[in-house]
Amino acid sequence: MGNSLGKLFTVTSFGESHGSCMGTVIDGCPAGLPLAAEDIQVDVDRRKPGPGAASTTRVEEDRVEILSGVFNGKTTGAPICLLVWNKDADSSQYEKMRFLPRPGHADYTAFIKYGGFNDFRGGGRFSGRVTVTMVMAGAIARKLLGQLGIEVLAHTIEIGGVKASPKGIDEIRQNVYRSPVRCADPEAAAEMIKVIERAKEEGDSIGGAVEGIALNVPAGLGEPIFDTLEGELARALFAIPAVKGVEFGAGFSVAGKRGSENNDPFIIRDGKIVTATNNAGGILGGISSGMPVVARVAVKPTPSISRTQQTVDLSTMESASLAVKGRHDVCVVPRAVTVVESMMAATLCDFALRAGIMPRVIK
Amino acid sequence: MGNSLGKLFTVTSFGESHGSCMGTVIDGCPAGLPLAAEDIQVDVDRRKPGPGAASTTRVEEDRVEILSGVFNGKTTGAPICLLVWNKDADSSQYEKMRFLPRPGHADYTAFIKYGGFNDFRGGGRFSGRVTVTMVMAGAIARKLLGQLGIEVLAHTIEIGGVKASPKGIDEIRQNVYRSPVRCADPEAAAEMIKVIERAKEEGDSIGGAVEGIALNVPAGLGEPIFDTLEGELARALFAIPAVKGVEFGAGFSVAGKRGSENNDPFIIRDGKIVTATNNAGGILGGISSGMPVVARVAVKPTPSISRTQQTVDLSTMESASLAVKGRHDVCVVPRAVTVVESMMAATLCDFALRAGIMPRVIK
Amino acid sequence: MGNSLGKLFTVTSFGESHGSCMGTVIDGCPAGLPLAAEDIQVDVDRRKPGPGAASTTRVEEDRVEILSGVFNGKTTGAPICLLVWNKDADSSQYEKMRFLPRPGHADYTAFIKYGGFNDFRGGGRFSGRVTVTMVMAGAIARKLLGQLGIEVLAHTIEIGGVKASPKGIDEIRQNVYRSPVRCADPEAAAEMIKVIERAKEEGDSIGGAVEGIALNVPAGLGEPIFDTLEGELARALFAIPAVKGVEFGAGFSVAGKRGSENNDPFIIRDGKIVTATNNAGGILGGISSGMPVVARVAVKPTPSISRTQQTVDLSTMESASLAVKGRHDVCVVPRAVTVVESMMAATLCDFALRAGIMPRVIK
Amino acid sequence: MGNSLGKLFTVTSFGESHGSCMGTVIDGCPAGLPLAAEDIQVDVDRRKPGPGAASTTRVEEDRVEILSGVFNGKTTGAPICLLVWNKDADSSQYEKMRFLPRPGHADYTAFIKYGGFNDFRGGGRFSGRVTVTMVMAGAIARKLLGQLGIEVLAHTIEIGGVKASPKGIDEIRQNVYRSPVRCADPEAAAEMIKVIERAKEEGDSIGGAVEGIALNVPAGLGEPIFDTLEGELARALFAIPAVKGVEFGAGFSVAGKRGSENNDPFIIRDGKIVTATNNAGGILGGISSGMPVVARVAVKPTPSISRTQQTVDLSTMESASLAVKGRHDVCVVPRAVTVVESMMAATLCDFALRAGIMPRVIK
Repeated sequence: MGNSLGKLFTVTSFGESHGSCMGTVIDGCPAGLPLAAEDIQVDVDRRKPGPGAASTTRVEEDRVEILSGVFNGKTTGAPICLLVWNKDADSSQYEKMRFLPRPGHADYTAFIKYGGFNDFRGGGRFSGRVTVTMVMAGAIARKLLGQLGIEVLAHTIEIGGVKASPKGIDEIRQNVYRSPVRCADPEAAAEMIKVIERAKEEGDSIGGAVEGIALNVPAGLGEPIFDTLEGELARALFAIPAVKGVEFGAGFSVAGKRGSENNDPFIIRDGKIVTATNNAGGILGGISSGMPVVARVAVKPTPSISRTQQTVDLSTMESASLAVKGRHDVCVVPRAVTVVESMMAATLCDFALRAGIMPRVIK
Repeated sequence: MGNSLGKLFTVTSFGESHGSCMGTVIDGCPAGLPLAAEDIQVDVDRRKPGPGAASTTRVEEDRVEILSGVFNGKTTGAPICLLVWNKDADSSQYEKMRFLPRPGHADYTAFIKYGGFNDFRGGGRFSGRVTVTMVMAGAIARKLLGQLGIEVLAHTIEIGGVKASPKGIDEIRQNVYRSPVRCADPEAAAEMIKVIERAKEEGDSIGGAVEGIALNVPAGLGEPIFDTLEGELARALFAIPAVKGVEFGAGFSVAGKRGSENNDPFIIRDGKIVTATNNAGGILGGISSGMPVVARVAVKPTPSISRTQQTVDLSTMESASLAVKGRHDVCVVPRAVTVVESMMAATLCDFALRAGIMPRVIK
Repeated sequence: MGNSLGKLFTVTSFGESHGSCMGTVIDGCPAGLPLAAEDIQVDVDRRKPGPGAASTTRVEEDRVEILSGVFNGKTTGAPICLLVWNKDADSSQYEKMRFLPRPGHADYTAFIKYGGFNDFRGGGRFSGRVTVTMVMAGAIARKLLGQLGIEVLAHTIEIGGVKASPKGIDEIRQNVYRSPVRCADPEAAAEMIKVIERAKEEGDSIGGAVEGIALNVPAGLGEPIFDTLEGELARALFAIPAVKGVEFGAGFSVAGKRGSENNDPFIIRDGKIVTATNNAGGILGGISSGMPVVARVAVKPTPSISRTQQTVDLSTMESASLAVKGRHDVCVVPRAVTVVESMMAATLCDFALRAGIMPRVIK
Repeated sequence: MGNSLGKLFTVTSFGESHGSCMGTVIDGCPAGLPLAAEDIQVDVDRRKPGPGAASTTRVEEDRVEILSGVFNGKTTGAPICLLVWNKDADSSQYEKMRFLPRPGHADYTAFIKYGGFNDFRGGGRFSGRVTVTMVMAGAIARKLLGQLGIEVLAHTIEIGGVKASPKGIDEIRQNVYRSPVRCADPEAAAEMIKVIERAKEEGDSIGGAVEGIALNVPAGLGEPIFDTLEGELARALFAIPAVKGVEFGAGFSVAGKRGSENNDPFIIRDGKIVTATNNAGGILGGISSGMPVVARVAVKPTPSISRTQQTVDLSTMESASLAVKGRHDVCVVPRAVTVVESMMAATLCDFALRAGIMPRVIK
């Protein structure tokens, strides 16, 4: 249990890193949406970091297949199963590490929870590869949101202490996928690449932060008091491996702020009610305000590092040490950008259906 | 919809600030738990800030009544309805502010979402008073977790830029509810009170941050990939009005960290596997590790301030200004402490039931 | 857990027969619906059988109170808590029967499931009184469905072997609540009353059947393959105590039918597609067809009879006998009529919201 | 939405009759259960009627593949995706029938609900082939229930008016899958085959009824008042295409019964509390009593018949006639037997997890 997300736009994920495939079933997609494997392929490809980002050398071909729910090029209203077959998985080194949980990974907690029966190869169900299933679902969600004029963007705002300068929406749109590190600020991006290279040389890894932005979200999405827009977005974003913090608008900076500076005054612009600032990140009382929805996530450094680390041998309960060999991203932040877009889109789609503003049939 | 939380330990909240009552229905509480109104009263009382915290002068008597689910002093397995009747509500000023949404409040988004039919008096369903319903549910959750030896604590770690020094668990246990601002560090607490007083004098409000800690959580709670422990805790914590950020363990600081410093090495202590550090906040791969679960939330400054603010008159669509009179907390952080405890407890209870480790009948 | 029904129109029930109250929380009701306690009182009153139906002599005053979710006479979009306080409960005889499970009642299964902690007085949570909470929710659902032109009716079609002749919709509308046994066929009703009287005289009870009909249900409600209209209606109807069978349209008679007689031919009438017959009960493939939705439920005879019955003393594990004294309905079928209407209405409301055809704000 | 079943043991179905595959994702299966494709293949094969039952001549090879969730021959706790690829699908005749809804089929309601975008070939998502996805899930559920000693059986009790004589459990176990019509009474089975043959000769189809029995279900499963054992079983059983009625124990016959004959007296047998009769079908108050859980479903005659039927051309809104050619079962009752077993098993599994009696790791 726990592998489904969403009440009306429901995403069910399956597959393991070194199993036969990664798959996702989307239930609740309105009928009539034009959809081809290529539409999803675009997002799956965008998830792969550009050259120079010191990413895994594992070849992820990841050809998306649509197994159900699409007929004559359009969605049918039936559940859509999407799949990429796994290839090029090198499982050779994992057997010997079976009882040596890698610090920072889910090896230990999965071992305890599943009684040692979990597929430990490449992290199994806890591998970053699971995000492919999120991105496939997100691609459909983004197409659906497009029907309502809603756009979801994300970009890297920090890697290893290097922070991007604030950029306008147009710059973000244009620059993100041209940058190997998915950063809209070219100068910061260059610095980030250096930081990643340095960590790589030292057998280490590095963390960062990603910002997600949803534009043209109509006021009124969110179902308080428990199914708030913040809460459901956070739940979806924390499903991304390595995310350890989620904030909206002014986020943690509100701790030091006065109400008079944090409150966003209402004003009229172009005949519409907007706020002069957006410290609320587009969400008041758990409900969208019509302003851009702005979320930021903290991404921890990849736990897999080639440096020697201390652990415990679960078979002998004795101290042990290990160094994680193999092909791993030094920094998963660039990949996380597409995943953040996907999870925000899936969540917004669910709320649009709940609010009754998404048509059940698209004509 | 959206007013229920939890899959097996389900909390349903109802009531408005100036309606007849605040109530909560807890479904899924195991049978046989000794429970009296006083048990819940304790937590409801703890939610009220101590003297000197510049809190609302509204008298919240809040006598808890148990309407169902308890028989002969013990829970029956049937849904438990808990209620406090509202008293001393002064609704006089709200009618004239009906079309003047207060900046930072949910007035505007609620107006749009509910077509102007929402109960706007005192914020209605979006008032901080709704947290009473969370605390009543949390009181039961905490008693249940006690059956498993799990303890949930929270404390104020920052108000208006004043940060508390790290304190040990014993100090937190002893100091928090002696401090009007719920801070375990007496020196910082004194400073925080000053900051609050200053904001009050200036007709302003102030934000802060709260840390929640769950001790003795067994390894294995959490249902990835979507129902992660982080994600479900975050969803519950974002339901608390004013929370704009949630992080676990090292949280947002991971953005600048190396894997070699952020990974928590596994070691053996007292014959058990633990981690030498707890940057993961007790959660790896969305599953509890057996280490303390540590969450931190950012609480924005109360939107209600007596300073004049800019808004729009929804009835005329013209610019307007307003100053929020009435009785409001200058800082809701001290109240939030008990609510954070409650929401963490309710979520952990749900996971304990899902994992099958909470007995369905307590003997 | 298990005390909530519906995905978007969510009904949460609480309260026990001899506890302080019976209550229900409705979450997901659109804002703007005119609603007064009297609107709900009407249905609660209709649930009480007419004179002559040999019903319980327990005085059920049952004054409905609205505790939340309504403001200025209209729903607000917030959860609506409805309550009737229990009065006139005579618990005196139950203590001595605590360990003597009544055959046909839930006494034994509740004892096992809840470890003996269940409130056994008057059946506690398993009393027919729990249907008040269903009827209160149904009253709101029926008002909402009225916004879409949907009408839900029910009537007694059999009591103790006496079957009603088929009647037209108008006759059902006019006759049902004039008949003490809620039967639209006056002659059959007279016979049913005799059957009930006879059972009463003999210290026995009697079963029957109820038919529910929903008119003007638009084609397209239902979410196959698992959330079918039949399946969700059945789930709601089986929640009514004493219901042991649910069928739609031709129901169990299909077992002996040929396809050529059971298939309903499509024809055009008044420019609309309808079926010439309605063996499908208005549901094809789990989706409404636009024809009347017709469900029938079998209601078992009240388990409480004054005749001596065989049981086991749970405290000694020895055979025992008991005769149920007190005030009980000889036949609960007349009461069930209003409850069937309520449960069908609540379910249809949920599907109307899921299909996006119910407005979220009613103007 | 609507394609998932179960709260903790969650079955998500996908695939269409003439699409690429039929699949199911099972989430919530405990780790450590030995599982091979062959285990599931057995049930999938049992779903095919024996020779002589006048079944479809479509070759359903249906080789089960496990795509995820199993590692080293055991379940891992991760979601299990099971798949059979579709072959031998003859879609040629469907295009011309696209706008001619077949009476008794979901063609019309699906057309309306999904705006004509549904995959209409072979009934698409509404084909009986969708039951393969139920059977695959049921196979796992049955294995899990076996861990608790629970056994689920089903058998044909009526076809076209021919009723089987009551048989003991041993006879049912031995005879059902030897009988082409899945009937434990050999004499009735022979008659049923004749009835089917006759219908076939006349270009018609025929209905029937199936009984499902779950043995060794411990007392205490079911979560009233809404998630009753009857209600959730009914919801699952109504998901089987063609089912129009569900009853438990004495079922609809209770309508004519007295309490004194319908109540099951409690007695002690072999030191355990049982009931002398089982009119309750093993369920009291929505909770299992420890007696066999007995459900019966009515299965309507296959809508597809070669006789000419009346319909409406949806493209012209004019009357039309059609005769359904192609390969169809004259009677789907024999197939339904395995599906009834599967749906009962999946539902019981879910309740066993909810009650906390199913281990999360099987050792």
